[in-house]
Amino acid sequence: MGYTTDTTYDGIREREFTVRDIPGVLWTPVPAGEHPPLVLLGHGGGLDRKSPPMTGRARLLVAAGLAAVCIDAPGHGSRPRTAEDSRDILLMRQARAAGSSLAPLVVRYNSRLAERAVPEWQLTIDALADEEFGPIGYAGVALGTAIGVPLAAVESRITAAAFGLCWPDNLLAPARQITVPVQYAMQWDDELISRHAALALFDAFGSAEKSLHANPGRHGDFPAHEVESSVRFLLRHLR
Amino acid sequence: MGYTTDTTYDGIREREFTVRDIPGVLWTPVPAGEHPPLVLLGHGGGLDRKSPPMTGRARLLVAAGLAAVCIDAPGHGSRPRTAEDSRDILLMRQARAAGSSLAPLVVRYNSRLAERAVPEWQLTIDALADEEFGPIGYAGVALGTAIGVPLAAVESRITAAAFGLCWPDNLLAPARQITVPVQYAMQWDDELISRHAALALFDAFGSAEKSLHANPGRHGDFPAHEVESSVRFLLRHLR
Repeated sequence: MGYTTDTTYDGIREREFTVRDIPGVLWTPVPAGEHPPLVLLGHGGGLDRKSPPMTGRARLLVAAGLAAVCIDAPGHGSRPRTAEDSRDILLMRQARAAGSSLAPLVVRYNSRLAERAVPEWQLTIDALADEEFGPIGYAGVALGTAIGVPLAAVESRITAAAFGLCWPDNLLAPARQITVPVQYAMQWDDELISRHAALALFDAFGSAEKSLHANPGRHGDFPAHEVESSVRFLLRHLR
Repeated sequence: MGYTTDTTYDGIREREFTVRDIPGVLWTPVPAGEHPPLVLLGHGGGLDRKSPPMTGRARLLVAAGLAAVCIDAPGHGSRPRTAEDSRDILLMRQARAAGSSLAPLVVRYNSRLAERAVPEWQLTIDALADEEFGPIGYAGVALGTAIGVPLAAVESRITAAAFGLCWPDNLLAPARQITVPVQYAMQWDDELISRHAALALFDAFGSAEKSLHANPGRHGDFPAHEVESSVRFLLRHLR
């Protein structure tokens, strides 16, 4: 892996890299320890690898002695958008403004991104082989779950995953293939994803060990304590 | 409060007491610290104040700097059973052996016990006033929830509560009166309490801050990590 930057702050070593044309960032503890577990962080829609939810999760993970990596999803950060991406983003903006249902648009858009993102994550894991990390986990909600579920279904190097806040539509089949420990977070009063839909996705996971966490509030009210809980969940399973 | 025993082990001071005719046990950290929060521990059906689930939770709480107290529920431990208690216990045994539904029997039995236990817990809190504890929480599943929900509904000194594994039938009305933070744990494949019933009870809590935790497995498969999670929940809200 050729790193393009290498900085250290607050006990965190941060290195930026590019795999093929995909920008990514790797955070490791200082000192690094032997074979620290690695968490793949999947960002949400409209965000990127260095948005505050990603750097905040990286900080918590590194403080616990784990490494974390995030790559920009297709069409996110500085990555180009396809004509289809741009059209769907416009349609989603219009639907939001008109107060009509976002679900079919988001499901289609997320699925298309996931098809491209799954092999990109696999390339990234390959490219990080020199770092000799320990067990690998995945954490991501919303778009991070739309990508993470099909990824974890096919990528046996992922041994635990924290998901949440996502439409089940295209995820039920890959969720059934996942057998590693899963934690799934939902919002009890989510205005975008029905309670029934969230429970159906949790139910679909093939994992013997899985936990559903539900908290009151709308889609955007996801509480900070669930972020901390997902870090503890990953620590428990990757250590 | 007149304590009948006073022993110290593993950094835990354990004192037994009797309030009216109710035996209880108080666990405090050594050294005690200033105004440690106090957690009321409600034991499950058929158990008592010093059963392993109670001493185990007390150990976790005391290690985190909190105090814990447990009293025997009516008809439990060394406390006498009424004729009605004995009749219901016999009927529950017969139903279990016959494979018929336990729900109506347990709901009736638990409700009757809760009516007596609520004022007993209030007496216990009064009797512990000299200890100058900080904020008070409650933790208990099954019978511990059947007693804890009506207790937390009327007892304003309880400021956070961890519940779980209980039939909703007589608890929906008091649950609606509860407004303090609540964590509720259910088993996703509970053979005794339906998924729908568990979700309905979680939904009923009047608390703005509440979390549902669901894990796979039957009623008896309640995972150890949920006990630890309830301790962290209480720490977060009582500290």
